[in-house]
Amino acid sequence: QRLGFPEVIYGEGKTAEQILNIMNRLSEYTDRILATRVDAEKGAYVLSQFPEAQYDEVGRTLTWRKHPVTEATGLYGKAAVVCAGTSDLPVASEAAATAAIMGCEVIRIHDVGVAGIHRLFAKLDQIREADVIIVVAGMEGALASVLGGLVDKPMIAVPTSIGYGAHYEGLAALLSMLNSCAPGVTVVNIDNGFGAGYAAATILRNRGNVQP
Amino acid sequence: QRLGFPEVIYGEGKTAEQILNIMNRLSEYTDRILATRVDAEKGAYVLSQFPEAQYDEVGRTLTWRKHPVTEATGLYGKAAVVCAGTSDLPVASEAAATAAIMGCEVIRIHDVGVAGIHRLFAKLDQIREADVIIVVAGMEGALASVLGGLVDKPMIAVPTSIGYGAHYEGLAALLSMLNSCAPGVTVVNIDNGFGAGYAAATILRNRGNVQP
Amino acid sequence: QRLGFPEVIYGEGKTAEQILNIMNRLSEYTDRILATRVDAEKGAYVLSQFPEAQYDEVGRTLTWRKHPVTEATGLYGKAAVVCAGTSDLPVASEAAATAAIMGCEVIRIHDVGVAGIHRLFAKLDQIREADVIIVVAGMEGALASVLGGLVDKPMIAVPTSIGYGAHYEGLAALLSMLNSCAPGVTVVNIDNGFGAGYAAATILRNRGNVQP
Amino acid sequence: QRLGFPEVIYGEGKTAEQILNIMNRLSEYTDRILATRVDAEKGAYVLSQFPEAQYDEVGRTLTWRKHPVTEATGLYGKAAVVCAGTSDLPVASEAAATAAIMGCEVIRIHDVGVAGIHRLFAKLDQIREADVIIVVAGMEGALASVLGGLVDKPMIAVPTSIGYGAHYEGLAALLSMLNSCAPGVTVVNIDNGFGAGYAAATILRNRGNVQP
Amino acid sequence: QRLGFPEVIYGEGKTAEQILNIMNRLSEYTDRILATRVDAEKGAYVLSQFPEAQYDEVGRTLTWRKHPVTEATGLYGKAAVVCAGTSDLPVASEAAATAAIMGCEVIRIHDVGVAGIHRLFAKLDQIREADVIIVVAGMEGALASVLGGLVDKPMIAVPTSIGYGAHYEGLAALLSMLNSCAPGVTVVNIDNGFGAGYAAATILRNRGNVQP
Amino acid sequence: QRLGFPEVIYGEGKTAEQILNIMNRLSEYTDRILATRVDAEKGAYVLSQFPEAQYDEVGRTLTWRKHPVTEATGLYGKAAVVCAGTSDLPVASEAAATAAIMGCEVIRIHDVGVAGIHRLFAKLDQIREADVIIVVAGMEGALASVLGGLVDKPMIAVPTSIGYGAHYEGLAALLSMLNSCAPGVTVVNIDNGFGAGYAAATILRNRGNVQP
Amino acid sequence: QRLGFPEVIYGEGKTAEQILNIMNRLSEYTDRILATRVDAEKGAYVLSQFPEAQYDEVGRTLTWRKHPVTEATGLYGKAAVVCAGTSDLPVASEAAATAAIMGCEVIRIHDVGVAGIHRLFAKLDQIREADVIIVVAGMEGALASVLGGLVDKPMIAVPTSIGYGAHYEGLAALLSMLNSCAPGVTVVNIDNGFGAGYAAATILRNRGNVQP
Amino acid sequence: QRLGFPEVIYGEGKTAEQILNIMNRLSEYTDRILATRVDAEKGAYVLSQFPEAQYDEVGRTLTWRKHPVTEATGLYGKAAVVCAGTSDLPVASEAAATAAIMGCEVIRIHDVGVAGIHRLFAKLDQIREADVIIVVAGMEGALASVLGGLVDKPMIAVPTSIGYGAHYEGLAALLSMLNSCAPGVTVVNIDNGFGAGYAAATILRNRGNVQP
Ligand SMILES: Nc1ncnc2c1ncn2[C@@H]1O[C@H](COP(=O)(O)O)[C@@H](O)[C@H]1O
Ligand SMILES: Nc1ncnc2c1ncn2[C@@H]1O[C@H](COP(=O)(O)O)[C@@H](O)[C@H]1O
Ligand SMILES: Nc1ncnc2c1ncn2[C@@H]1O[C@H](COP(=O)(O)O)[C@@H](O)[C@H]1O
Ligand SMILES: Nc1ncnc2c1ncn2[C@@H]1O[C@H](COP(=O)(O)O)[C@@H](O)[C@H]1O
Ligand SMILES: [Mg+2]
Ligand SMILES: [Mg+2]
Ligand SMILES: [Mg+2]
Ligand SMILES: [Mg+2]
Ligand SMILES: [Mg+2]
Ligand SMILES: [Mg+2]
Ligand SMILES: [Mg+2]
Ligand SMILES: [Mg+2]
Repeated sequence: QRLGFPEVIYGEGKTAEQILNIMNRLSEYTDRILATRVDAEKGAYVLSQFPEAQYDEVGRTLTWRKHPVTEATGLYGKAAVVCAGTSDLPVASEAAATAAIMGCEVIRIHDVGVAGIHRLFAKLDQIREADVIIVVAGMEGALASVLGGLVDKPMIAVPTSIGYGAHYEGLAALLSMLNSCAPGVTVVNIDNGFGAGYAAATILRNRGNVQP
Repeated sequence: QRLGFPEVIYGEGKTAEQILNIMNRLSEYTDRILATRVDAEKGAYVLSQFPEAQYDEVGRTLTWRKHPVTEATGLYGKAAVVCAGTSDLPVASEAAATAAIMGCEVIRIHDVGVAGIHRLFAKLDQIREADVIIVVAGMEGALASVLGGLVDKPMIAVPTSIGYGAHYEGLAALLSMLNSCAPGVTVVNIDNGFGAGYAAATILRNRGNVQP
Repeated sequence: QRLGFPEVIYGEGKTAEQILNIMNRLSEYTDRILATRVDAEKGAYVLSQFPEAQYDEVGRTLTWRKHPVTEATGLYGKAAVVCAGTSDLPVASEAAATAAIMGCEVIRIHDVGVAGIHRLFAKLDQIREADVIIVVAGMEGALASVLGGLVDKPMIAVPTSIGYGAHYEGLAALLSMLNSCAPGVTVVNIDNGFGAGYAAATILRNRGNVQP
Repeated sequence: QRLGFPEVIYGEGKTAEQILNIMNRLSEYTDRILATRVDAEKGAYVLSQFPEAQYDEVGRTLTWRKHPVTEATGLYGKAAVVCAGTSDLPVASEAAATAAIMGCEVIRIHDVGVAGIHRLFAKLDQIREADVIIVVAGMEGALASVLGGLVDKPMIAVPTSIGYGAHYEGLAALLSMLNSCAPGVTVVNIDNGFGAGYAAATILRNRGNVQP
Repeated sequence: QRLGFPEVIYGEGKTAEQILNIMNRLSEYTDRILATRVDAEKGAYVLSQFPEAQYDEVGRTLTWRKHPVTEATGLYGKAAVVCAGTSDLPVASEAAATAAIMGCEVIRIHDVGVAGIHRLFAKLDQIREADVIIVVAGMEGALASVLGGLVDKPMIAVPTSIGYGAHYEGLAALLSMLNSCAPGVTVVNIDNGFGAGYAAATILRNRGNVQP
Repeated sequence: QRLGFPEVIYGEGKTAEQILNIMNRLSEYTDRILATRVDAEKGAYVLSQFPEAQYDEVGRTLTWRKHPVTEATGLYGKAAVVCAGTSDLPVASEAAATAAIMGCEVIRIHDVGVAGIHRLFAKLDQIREADVIIVVAGMEGALASVLGGLVDKPMIAVPTSIGYGAHYEGLAALLSMLNSCAPGVTVVNIDNGFGAGYAAATILRNRGNVQP
Repeated sequence: QRLGFPEVIYGEGKTAEQILNIMNRLSEYTDRILATRVDAEKGAYVLSQFPEAQYDEVGRTLTWRKHPVTEATGLYGKAAVVCAGTSDLPVASEAAATAAIMGCEVIRIHDVGVAGIHRLFAKLDQIREADVIIVVAGMEGALASVLGGLVDKPMIAVPTSIGYGAHYEGLAALLSMLNSCAPGVTVVNIDNGFGAGYAAATILRNRGNVQP
Repeated sequence: QRLGFPEVIYGEGKTAEQILNIMNRLSEYTDRILATRVDAEKGAYVLSQFPEAQYDEVGRTLTWRKHPVTEATGLYGKAAVVCAGTSDLPVASEAAATAAIMGCEVIRIHDVGVAGIHRLFAKLDQIREADVIIVVAGMEGALASVLGGLVDKPMIAVPTSIGYGAHYEGLAALLSMLNSCAPGVTVVNIDNGFGAGYAAATILRNRGNVQP
């Protein structure tokens, strides 16, 4: 296992018991664990047996760290996780939890959809302070293009499956982001908050900063 | 034939000779003709035989009007045709020519792509003066969503086939527009400038204004 | 918030409690509210706590208006919502509720499918009286083309997911409407009654009529 | 080879020389030959060497019959080939040539598109006289549904690749026809005039009539 | 209502109560009723209130006839409904029930899959006696091509959704049948046994035979 | 480079000069070369400079062997390459050339389409003698299922792009073969004769026979 | 029934009772039975009535053999079933059970995903000892290409539906395997462990070995 | 225009004359220009008029820099552009040219396909020295997954349209990369070398290094 990287458990299709067992085993030789796609019921069970872990019901993640993060230990850099509304929060939260446990300071901006663009402009200075930006958007995914044209930071776009009809469970947003007219937008799989957080943290970890 | 509606010729797959013949026949009993999808070579031939017509090389349209439009005859209203860049001009021009021959005053705004959003804001007052808006966009088609959120006028979005790879000849822009987070955006077929112009003019003609 | 525009709540994925809270908050500073995609159980709960609202079980909409609509206050114009049969009624009703709360007089025509075209002809005069037409159709969506060829009014077509097999949850109707041989038909997303109603009302509100 | 069935050559990808050779060979033991997808250049060459054949430039078919069809020899029945406009004529002509050489009386109706439905009604009596109906349509293919609802005869629908954008080379018309709300419409492959003509003739041949 | 045609009820999405009401109303002025897509529970309820009807659990159809079919009243002709195995029986039974109530004599052949082709050959004489053939097949749908090459009768192919993975709920069989190398095979929508039965009966009814 | 395996050159997108250079270089240290997708013009040029090679115009392959194959040197086993008609010959020939140069005895069977199944039965004994079978088919690809049900040998199916309309350049045949009701049929990419020949030879080479 | 081939029952959509009945009937004249897609509940029921069978909960297979396999009776050869992780085990187990009952010695290798390629290298010698290799992989299915480049044995790749978003239930892995840059990889349907096992056994049975 | 960012011209659909004019205009106020998708003929023309520019025939890029890059002016960091073979070179070269003109040191690694994985391992140390990695791959795109599992640097994957049949012009590689089992791989559009180079340079520019 690579230093400072979390051990990651993909919770989908695993029982609470299985997740708990893997966490118990991993906690013996690693310093941080991330489990994704853990629903509320499984999360509650694991917490009851492994109370040092933390469960986030929105992002459906379980996290555990051996050592608390202190300002002294430092952080690799700042990642902004931006999304339009409440529907995209689960994916945004998965991204945030992943980036955080990999050593990033994470700032969260939501409610900045393209249909009411003034709200986005109000948050622009805050977003520009980040070293890497994760944009999470369903529907037509235009947020990635708009933000990509406004900010010169590395940007990772996550299409979500939020939408209906000709959205085709995220395909509309995915194609939109792959064809962004803002140059340099990179994309991960539909609903893959984990992948975006991981990519963002990998960017920040490779800047030569101190380790958290 | 309905009063004030143009007779429309779809030029694709017709020879210059065939287009000319239809125009000659139609000009006997109608007061305006529109031919779309007429390439430069065919256009030149028709003009040489039917010099009262007008040919637009960018939009590939031939138009003919029996009576010149004068301010006195009035116009149904104002249609804005908005697009991001030079690649979308052929479709935008087809839309503009269609709306114009059906009696609309047409204003053209180009070079207002989402990646440089300040240019769009600079034109916003001008766009808001229109009674109906046609948005023409390829790539990820985000212009429709951004503009749809900024303006409260009827809006018709035309996805174009401009793009490559996972653009799938306009599919990315089409899905994007169908899933716009700005409510009330309506959509026509990929590259269908004609349909958008026709729909815009139908909206304006039904407002009870004088006929041009 | 824009004067005379409803505040809209997208009920999908929200609890009855959440919908109620938003309605309570909105009712303090707006004069009309629309909530869509509210199932019967949620609708009943909201009504029990917010009895001034109205719930439509077919269209799954909750609506609330501070001031009753009186003939004196006027209406922006007449919108016809046309569909073929009972299966498309939910989408048609969502469109109707949206157009109505935005100030349109709404007339409803159903049971006019293409397979029995005489029933459509029997209603043609009534449809032609409307200022804007919303066509709701599943299956092959041919109703939009047939009606589009018979009426010279702005027309918004809504493909529905009603069908099976190679219908692909509305794709067949969507493609059909995008390729309509009747010029000027515009299209919204599959099952998006809300978007069609909103677009229709936006057309009527921009005709300069009195405000309801 | 089955009595009264033509030998069929699929001309696509075959040279004029190859088509000629097959026709020469076949003409020795069969009484009728049909070659489809033969472009004008190949057709001219074959005719120059095999002058008893007939070439149809629109439908791109070569046909040859040993014995002329006389009223005395009779025909299996009447097939109507119906289409909307000039663009669909190649496919309609392939269907007509196929049905004719297999012994059907063929009547042709064109220019009866859905956008101008009165022209269709004007031809309805003529269409109803046929024993089987082939409907050829591109765009949204609504003609099949409209006609299917008006006539109680066996109906074979041929989607064509005429259209652009979200037509996807015939997919829109194909899905439309497969989802027709008029019961009993059957469908063949996109642009497959041959298949439709063959199916129509097979229906008529099995009615027990005299052989042409 | 057209003489000798059944009134057809599409049971999907209707309650048992609704189906019963429609049947009661229809039985007053028609001589035969067909309801399709009626699940076992609904079927049982309707039978309990309308005991003269007949319910077929496999094909999920309810049928009712005012007058019993007697040999004296005659039948329009013979339709063979052919399928490969037990999985396709529901669709085959829907086709059979439809053809039967429309006046066809129906013969059923199952268990004749392409993977064991000798079983098909054993039934060939029986199939060839029919006047029209309905082939129902899922998986790769090859049965339509094999049978189409062996029999010279009108053939209607019904792709079914039986399969998994790259079957895409019937798409594999649908495309296969549309591209059949046996000429003259016509196709209806995936799982559309009703449409196939209706088309078959329409073919037979137009042969000029006596009415059942 | 692995003993007895050919060096393979993918000719698509390479100039004749480039292919020649690679062949010259390879011939110094290998004993057999295969170049695929070499069109006639390039083939002629290479032959003019490298006359020991052999060019097959149908399969568009160039092959070269240092040592002639003699019966004494033996062959790994017998591969049958089966296809329906002339259109599929290019792919079948590519498969045959590949299997041959890798040490298989290759037998070729063509003109055994499913629409005339008696021709297939006439060749069955010959096909059954092979140790591995490559089935090449376009259209609906039913040949793979029919043959798969008749023979108990390893079978590799190659879908070809021969077809039109809803064939989608081989998709129909590909899906058909992946869903074959005959168990044990394996599939390679559309038009991938090379891959099928390679797989067949790999099967035969691993049976422990002598090396050719 | 062919000697040494199992009778196979496709359990999907069959009741436990039906599966039991077929097994009882088959056991009278065959020496081995395989039932696939049998869920745990059905499996338990069948075992309670037919205790000589064996049920594998992971692969959801029921198997029965009249005669135990002894070393004396021999085996056709060795098949390796390779997969990346626990999610693909159901499909891998179905493949293994099928190959085993058809007379192969089966070795199982799991936890050799491409993301941690050293684990794959650690198992390479073991894999190379097999006579045929079945690779089971979801996600991007790269394992087939990597292993295909490292081993010269016949290889059958099974894409699985494990993944989400733009995985499209196995499509990503299927396309990946069909386009493998390692020559000679053949592919079966998504999740079709049965087909892969059957194909592998057919390869081994045709090598001329003794029968198990 | 942002300091240190190149002005970028998309050459597709522009004439040589147009490209030249834009370059002349831009060179007055910017310090670097990049034109992509410029074919050889256009490139030669521009060079003849604007000899200070550089044209790369493989990547089809024109570049111009006002000030030469010297070691003294420094570079933002090192970007590795990795691909499998000659077919992917055009896209890889576009990526390399873009990253270079934006101030990155670029190292190129080709001929490291997955089918011969030892060649990749031989280059691993060199690749690991880079600060960001661009992987360019067609076919099944497995290179991204393999390399992603071996290196802990930010990685941008570019699917290319190299492939045939079920490759669907890059779709197979795109889906493969979006579903990579190696975490943190981000993806740009098919053949979008420019986007990948831009994203890589944006990552490196934001590390706080000196400006070149
Ligand atoms: N939400 C997620 N989406 C995609 N991949 C994930 C996700 N969560 C974890 N993974 C990957 O799954 C791997 C663990 O899978 P497993 O061994 O099945 O628990 C991790 O190493 C991650 O690469
Ligand atoms: N049925 C619907 N279909 C599509 N969009 C809708 C629908 N109903 C509401 N909306 C949109 O959803 C927005 C509210 O979303 P939310 O804030 O999540 O409740 C509204 O402003 C509408 O634009
Ligand atoms: N236009 C067509 N579309 C589809 N199939 C055709 C067409 N014309 C001929 N065929 C079929 O192609 C067969 C002849 O193919 P070939 O032997 O290649 O000439 C005929 O028996 C027909 O079944
Ligand atoms: N898991 C499977 N996937 C695909 N085909 C299967 C599977 N299991 C069994 N089969 C096939 O299904 C046939 C039996 O189908 P049935 O008669 O419906 O039980 C067998 O002969 C196999 O060819
Ligand atoms: Mg940016
Ligand atoms: Mg708006
Ligand atoms: Mg109209
Ligand atoms: Mg009819
Ligand atoms: Mg036949
Ligand atoms: Mg077999
Ligand atoms: Mg290999
Ligand atoms: Mg990595």
